[in-house]
Amino acid sequence: MPLNHGGDWAGFAAEYGCLPLDFSSNVSPLGLPEGVKRAVAAALERADRYPDPLCRGLIRALADRHGLPEDRIVCGNGAADLLYRIALALRPRTALLPAPTFSEYALALEAAGTTVKRFPLAREDGFRTPPSLAEAIQPGLDLLVLCEPNNPTGRTTDPALLEKIIRRCRENGVRLLIDECFIPFLEDPAAHSSINRLAANENLILLRAFTKWYAMAGLRLGYALCGSSETARRLREFGPPWAVSLPAQEAGVAALREKEYDAALRGLIREGRRQLLSGLTELGMEVIPGEANFLLFFSRDASLCEKLRPKGILLRDCRNFAGLGVGWYRTAIRTEEENNALLAALSEVIHD
Amino acid sequence: MPLNHGGDWAGFAAEYGCLPLDFSSNVSPLGLPEGVKRAVAAALERADRYPDPLCRGLIRALADRHGLPEDRIVCGNGAADLLYRIALALRPRTALLPAPTFSEYALALEAAGTTVKRFPLAREDGFRTPPSLAEAIQPGLDLLVLCEPNNPTGRTTDPALLEKIIRRCRENGVRLLIDECFIPFLEDPAAHSSINRLAANENLILLRAFTKWYAMAGLRLGYALCGSSETARRLREFGPPWAVSLPAQEAGVAALREKEYDAALRGLIREGRRQLLSGLTELGMEVIPGEANFLLFFSRDASLCEKLRPKGILLRDCRNFAGLGVGWYRTAIRTEEENNALLAALSEVIHD
Repeated sequence: MPLNHGGDWAGFAAEYGCLPLDFSSNVSPLGLPEGVKRAVAAALERADRYPDPLCRGLIRALADRHGLPEDRIVCGNGAADLLYRIALALRPRTALLPAPTFSEYALALEAAGTTVKRFPLAREDGFRTPPSLAEAIQPGLDLLVLCEPNNPTGRTTDPALLEKIIRRCRENGVRLLIDECFIPFLEDPAAHSSINRLAANENLILLRAFTKWYAMAGLRLGYALCGSSETARRLREFGPPWAVSLPAQEAGVAALREKEYDAALRGLIREGRRQLLSGLTELGMEVIPGEANFLLFFSRDASLCEKLRPKGILLRDCRNFAGLGVGWYRTAIRTEEENNALLAALSEVIHD
Repeated sequence: MPLNHGGDWAGFAAEYGCLPLDFSSNVSPLGLPEGVKRAVAAALERADRYPDPLCRGLIRALADRHGLPEDRIVCGNGAADLLYRIALALRPRTALLPAPTFSEYALALEAAGTTVKRFPLAREDGFRTPPSLAEAIQPGLDLLVLCEPNNPTGRTTDPALLEKIIRRCRENGVRLLIDECFIPFLEDPAAHSSINRLAANENLILLRAFTKWYAMAGLRLGYALCGSSETARRLREFGPPWAVSLPAQEAGVAALREKEYDAALRGLIREGRRQLLSGLTELGMEVIPGEANFLLFFSRDASLCEKLRPKGILLRDCRNFAGLGVGWYRTAIRTEEENNALLAALSEVIHD
């Protein structure tokens, strides 16, 4: 299996015998909340039992959190699990994806036999979603996928344009999947989320994850919010009844009770974003002004990853993103100290 | 989502405020091995990282254990995850399943659009696999699914007949999926496993799980052993790269190092099987002489589950298995003390 993503600490550990400082995957640098760790440790005593296939406690907590009926919520083994279920359950003939965007959309859709078309985002425009995307939504298209904020650019779609896109999808019978996995990292998540549009748009599906914000990538927990209970039912059918492990269910319930973690992380990401944006710019990189917990930048140096690796640092090489190429990198935003370590290491290698 | 399986401790807990003594799902009564618990607790400190998508450590350990090339092994989020991948990746047009057997085969295959045909097993013959099954393997059939030992009957197929079935599948271009999830509970697992037939049968896929033997049902970990690396590659493509959580990968590696647990469990199941077989027979039940860690039995009482529930005991009502009906029950084999509790409770309710 090819490695299409960052986060290959296991490959690093096999080579160097230790764990890297990982800027190649975009998770909270605060680690698992203590309350989540306690919940998982407690769950371990009951882990001989099958997980609740209905995820009752977790779905109730999510319905409360989002103000949605329980029958619109489907939990999965990470958001990626739901992505494959969406592709395999809905089997769109054609799908339109921005380029660049998260590569797993195309992989899941192509596994399901979908013909994937790309809508190029312009570097000159900072990879923003252009108004012309709305015009590309035509009858005959089965699915549009958006990522808000977009991975790897970190850009959001202007809310008025997003509203127009949603309307055009509804009017033209096009399903719309919006991946909101990174939305909690925005300064104003509510201004960009489409949750309040679910009730009026049966064709809308939102993807969410605990993975990134709560640093639970290893535990796997994501969910889909569906505009229709029928779509939710289909997604449940296209996977095993015990998709969400018992530790992940308990972790999710505990995470939704966190308050201090949320506030601390929000401040940390805001400061870190500023720090890395200016630090990378000072180093001569072309930095895309992303709004999430990662930044996309361009360097004339095509081998930054190889140079940082012996220094114990993983960076995401973005050359395998459709619409990008050699010289593009994505860095996660981590703690001030870790960000400084990245900037210092970069400063050494680019002056080599 | 309908509940098609046993193990609904969550529904019981919601009603009674405590956990049941669960004879309705077939997991080791010894709980997680201590070494596995320690490995998961240690993994929790790194659970902010994505799991290794290649499952390198675990696949190496499994390849060692089974003497197979690493590229024939696919790990999944429980064996059920792999079942859905097999159905969705291979999309058989027609499949033949024994009746009764584990209901998730049909659910996964029907989600993939497969036409499922049933091969009835006869009660008069103790639900054994009859020689006539081999004759039912004809060109035009895409997939045969066998469960060895069969769930919920606990019966195995005679090795000479199994060999004939494998040969006929190969000769007729029929894929053969053998679910060996319960095979470690047999007195002589090696005599019944088809692992040594993988090399000569590209069309063969075996399913295995850690779930049952190591009481890891809540953690989710299963794997497929494939006769061809091409099939293994397809199965990897039809699911997210991070299907196996970091705790599950670490748990699997730790479980494969267990020795004492294996010996203790084998003895416990052997004794418990004898105990429940004679105890249930004494209570007037018709008990199918199963060879796994569960027993199928018939009672004239159609409401045993409802009667045991207020006593804190869950039993599996098998009326929703194709080929069974009202009055059929499956009980897990647990510790001597727990088995006695089940027999005592049954004895009370059937004399009501």
